[in-house]
Amino acid sequence: MPSTVLPAAPTRGALRPLGLDEVDITGGFWARRRHINETVGLRHCRDWMERSGWTGNFRAAAEGRVQQDRQGREFADSEIYKLLEATAWQSASGSAPDVDVTALVGAVAAAQEPDGYLNTAFGRPGQPPRYSDLEWGHELYCYGHLIQAGVAEARARGGSGGELAEVARRAADHICATFGRGGIERVCGHPLIETALVELARLTGEERYLAQAALFVDRRGHGTLADGEFGRVYHQDDLPVREARALRGHAVRALYLAAGAVDVAVETGDEELLAAVVRQWEAGVARRTYVTGGMGSHHRDESFGDDFVLPPDRAYSETCAGVASVLLSWRLLLATGEPRFADLAERTLFNVVATSPAEHGRAFFYANTLHRRHRSAVPAPDTVSPGADPGLRAPWFAVSCCPTNVARTLAQLPAHLATADDHGIQLHQYADARIATSLTPGHAVALRIRTDYPADGTVVVRVDRSPSDRPWTVSLRVPAWTAGATSWLVEPDGTRRTVAPGTAEVTRVFRPGDEIRLELPVRPRWIGADPRVDAVRGAVAVQRGPRVYCAESVDLPDGLDVDAIRVDPAVDPRDGPDPAVDTVVVDGRLALYDPRSTAYDARRDEPWPYRPLDAPTAPPGSDRAEITLVPYHSWANRGPSTMRVWLPADDR
Amino acid sequence: MPSTVLPAAPTRGALRPLGLDEVDITGGFWARRRHINETVGLRHCRDWMERSGWTGNFRAAAEGRVQQDRQGREFADSEIYKLLEATAWQSASGSAPDVDVTALVGAVAAAQEPDGYLNTAFGRPGQPPRYSDLEWGHELYCYGHLIQAGVAEARARGGSGGELAEVARRAADHICATFGRGGIERVCGHPLIETALVELARLTGEERYLAQAALFVDRRGHGTLADGEFGRVYHQDDLPVREARALRGHAVRALYLAAGAVDVAVETGDEELLAAVVRQWEAGVARRTYVTGGMGSHHRDESFGDDFVLPPDRAYSETCAGVASVLLSWRLLLATGEPRFADLAERTLFNVVATSPAEHGRAFFYANTLHRRHRSAVPAPDTVSPGADPGLRAPWFAVSCCPTNVARTLAQLPAHLATADDHGIQLHQYADARIATSLTPGHAVALRIRTDYPADGTVVVRVDRSPSDRPWTVSLRVPAWTAGATSWLVEPDGTRRTVAPGTAEVTRVFRPGDEIRLELPVRPRWIGADPRVDAVRGAVAVQRGPRVYCAESVDLPDGLDVDAIRVDPAVDPRDGPDPAVDTVVVDGRLALYDPRSTAYDARRDEPWPYRPLDAPTAPPGSDRAEITLVPYHSWANRGPSTMRVWLPADDR
Repeated sequence: MPSTVLPAAPTRGALRPLGLDEVDITGGFWARRRHINETVGLRHCRDWMERSGWTGNFRAAAEGRVQQDRQGREFADSEIYKLLEATAWQSASGSAPDVDVTALVGAVAAAQEPDGYLNTAFGRPGQPPRYSDLEWGHELYCYGHLIQAGVAEARARGGSGGELAEVARRAADHICATFGRGGIERVCGHPLIETALVELARLTGEERYLAQAALFVDRRGHGTLADGEFGRVYHQDDLPVREARALRGHAVRALYLAAGAVDVAVETGDEELLAAVVRQWEAGVARRTYVTGGMGSHHRDESFGDDFVLPPDRAYSETCAGVASVLLSWRLLLATGEPRFADLAERTLFNVVATSPAEHGRAFFYANTLHRRHRSAVPAPDTVSPGADPGLRAPWFAVSCCPTNVARTLAQLPAHLATADDHGIQLHQYADARIATSLTPGHAVALRIRTDYPADGTVVVRVDRSPSDRPWTVSLRVPAWTAGATSWLVEPDGTRRTVAPGTAEVTRVFRPGDEIRLELPVRPRWIGADPRVDAVRGAVAVQRGPRVYCAESVDLPDGLDVDAIRVDPAVDPRDGPDPAVDTVVVDGRLALYDPRSTAYDARRDEPWPYRPLDAPTAPPGSDRAEITLVPYHSWANRGPSTMRVWLPADDR
Repeated sequence: MPSTVLPAAPTRGALRPLGLDEVDITGGFWARRRHINETVGLRHCRDWMERSGWTGNFRAAAEGRVQQDRQGREFADSEIYKLLEATAWQSASGSAPDVDVTALVGAVAAAQEPDGYLNTAFGRPGQPPRYSDLEWGHELYCYGHLIQAGVAEARARGGSGGELAEVARRAADHICATFGRGGIERVCGHPLIETALVELARLTGEERYLAQAALFVDRRGHGTLADGEFGRVYHQDDLPVREARALRGHAVRALYLAAGAVDVAVETGDEELLAAVVRQWEAGVARRTYVTGGMGSHHRDESFGDDFVLPPDRAYSETCAGVASVLLSWRLLLATGEPRFADLAERTLFNVVATSPAEHGRAFFYANTLHRRHRSAVPAPDTVSPGADPGLRAPWFAVSCCPTNVARTLAQLPAHLATADDHGIQLHQYADARIATSLTPGHAVALRIRTDYPADGTVVVRVDRSPSDRPWTVSLRVPAWTAGATSWLVEPDGTRRTVAPGTAEVTRVFRPGDEIRLELPVRPRWIGADPRVDAVRGAVAVQRGPRVYCAESVDLPDGLDVDAIRVDPAVDPRDGPDPAVDTVVVDGRLALYDPRSTAYDARRDEPWPYRPLDAPTAPPGSDRAEITLVPYHSWANRGPSTMRVWLPADDR
């Protein structure tokens, strides 16, 4: 019987997900990140929500004093739900996170009203009425996270779940009664309820939740929300989902909406709707995505920019947009089986999701800039960041959506590594891991994956369990980033062959102990951008495997800042001397500018930064230098620094 | 006796301003702009403020129904004041604008409370208390514009002014009583009151207004305003004015504050304070200013970016920041006599202030982007724009600060052309104009300036009146944009000499009819940016005289968009074939991309916009083409278009 411990459990689709009881990450990059999340991150979030008063809002609501005592923004409830979801998935991997879930769930349940309504910011005496501000109130968005948490609780403990799942079902019934046909025929300003209701339908088998989700998807784009400063596009309310041509508007909203639309399309067999989302994803990836996989280039409204508007120094690339992108790509992968979706998920996981949390797990990036020009002051460890300063990670934010979103993503990550179908197992993401499942009843298989990916490109897949009498298939994603270099596959019999980007398959009657070896060309390479990405013209980046690298001022001599760097793309980048620290070395020049010139000085600097080309001046010169780069996700862990991903090519 | 019809009337300083009764713009570029402003713009603003209910707020306040009837944002009062100021300056030039000032002034006066308080958004029953939201309430900001309007009324009509000047004085007395030492020892979230109070002190001779302005300048930077999402820097409340190193935070706020600090410094002889502002101006101009003179690169908080963060496609470059920059440069010019301040003012006037209004005068840019990638829908002529779409001018905005700010700047523009001192006249801006003043009592002089500047570089200054017995000096600014090219000066006796950027002087006993001829090298030139301006690396701009040029899609063949352009900087730009339309022609290539590729198409486009450089592909080719450019200020007057100022250099 297939696992039910699944973050997403579509009833149809090309691939079948594996559960958190079937996949275990046993070592390496993601095991370290998950360990920090389990032992530090979850508790960090819980403590800050206690301290900020957000958990107390539920108690205040139950006790009739929420009007005067409520703390936090209108969507603060959702943070508790995301923490509960994260805790559920983490516990499904066999750990016991140090967060008192029972008390939290009890407080949430006690705040639910008899008709199923649950939100601490609306509807009680002295508060705005229920659903009086669908544009900005986030009520249905909060339900979405509540339902996802309830589903997680049920799937993690089995059966129909416990108290939280029951709260979620009551909320969903209230939503169907309130927002069904003939009810409030509008949508929420922040999508999420769509994908949550579909997952609840999958859990419970209740078709009405799916029908309500489909209603929400089809209602959007018809202007049921008021127009505002950022335009209808901000809420994706400018065009119906089926008609839109690209991911657009507020990035997190756009990606959650797309995920919900995929879920509805899969469950209802709506190929037109699925194709519409794929088309938007394609356009968004081809023209509106940073080399890190980050999405959203506008700070003002946290939104996608126009095609090719991707300024590195003003990248918003919100952590939550990275999470949402991973969740969307995962759904598209399950629906279609196409490796391009796993390619983007990998890029986004390593370069956005992994970048947000500090190494110690107690501070987070909200925005993930690709270029930082000045050194930020270190935020005090006990202060809430009012905004999203992209220079240093902060322990908590006034709008603190990102920490809990990272937590729930890391907690469910093992489920994203592999899938199955009747004929075999498909490996999508590489990590040191164990996989054990049944392809069909009685056809149990187990794999042991050994790798130091992404530092190293060798992935060894050992078959630990296999039926002795029938062939099956191990599929391995050959990442798109290998294009132009050579990947090798070594079969159990020693046959060695090159494999192209896409999917490599080995089909045979496996014996326990059989090994498949995938050798991916993990070496640093220069990357260039489409010439229409104006903001990085004349600059190059370095990628090594799935990871984007950056220059950080702490690795430069003489107090120089990264804007002094000019690189020579004619010389290949190479691995740093110490394989333990994942650095890359490139050739170039430094000290193009006086290191003291980080602030304007009238005695040394030009008074106007533009000059006629027919009155040229000689550029300042300097000797050649070797410049050390580090993985982008690791930046800003060594104190205030300047940083850049795109490095100007030397034009001397 | 010197003129008193002065927008700014410092009692000290290197140069003495000339009044609107001493300088008349008689033809050419600015005369056309001023004519539209007088005959169309002022009435347009008045009509929209009536229609938006903003003028009605004063009547509602006087009639005790403002709580339920008030319209517009908290700073709407200031728009009426700016219109009154604009009307006063325009009437001082001898015209009779078609705006019923008497009724407006009466409504304003009727709304003033007995103690001098005046704001329609605060303080009455049912409204927030007075001064309960200094961060965002804009009460002192509104007083600033009220006082500037009162000063303008007084200076335009002479004597101590009329009803509006009296309202302004009462308001100023209320401010001094309320915000003096021992009162509310805080500042307003939006500076402006500082410069306004100094001007009122200059008008009335009342030292207490100056003292209050100095208090406001010195109080800022000590955190008397609450911290917020954008940080204290947004309000310039992070550092005292004397300590700050660069223009920073919200651009309009920063520039108005700097203008006020200059005024205080000049009147109190505070050289330290003046030097601090000059230092901030230098750093802002050297590192945080667009080639257009535009300031502010962040949409999110309308603020200056970090040094060299100047993305053309996300330039905010708010029109009001352009206005504020011109007003600041004017004050610095008067204080120091240095031509660099007039250089920036000229650039900003031609490329920001002149860009905002449409040719017909009934629509305005709020933000002045330097690169527009898609064509905007034409706003309906009778709709208020909720935000600042940088693609097309809108007739009015929910926050409509820019139209009235353009109006008051154009109305006072003649006063910015020239100054005097005891020894002569200094010409700072070139336009077809008449100037008549007295250098010292009994020493009357008059100049007639004939030019088609900036289309043509020849400026002929004829002396129409001069004492027959004593020498005096005509000084002419030789603009900084002439650097690297040759400017000629021809003296009345025919002597012809080259003059370098800075100031050229002719001192002699002039006779009526004597002519000085300045020949400025107005020809198109390629402009490059400091390599630290990452966003325009590998791209060049064209400047012709003080004006920046741009490519606009309406001038391209085959429906191409401007992103298809690649130019060849090795070939000099040249004047277009028709001298009447001010075009420039450059060499390059077009059709680098399929013109249909303005939207992503999976059949034709690359799925991912980054590629390893060791796996190159051939760039698409095309034949050489001549590309027509137009002055940047003229763009978007021919329907929806795409546009760019910075043109990628062909790297084929």
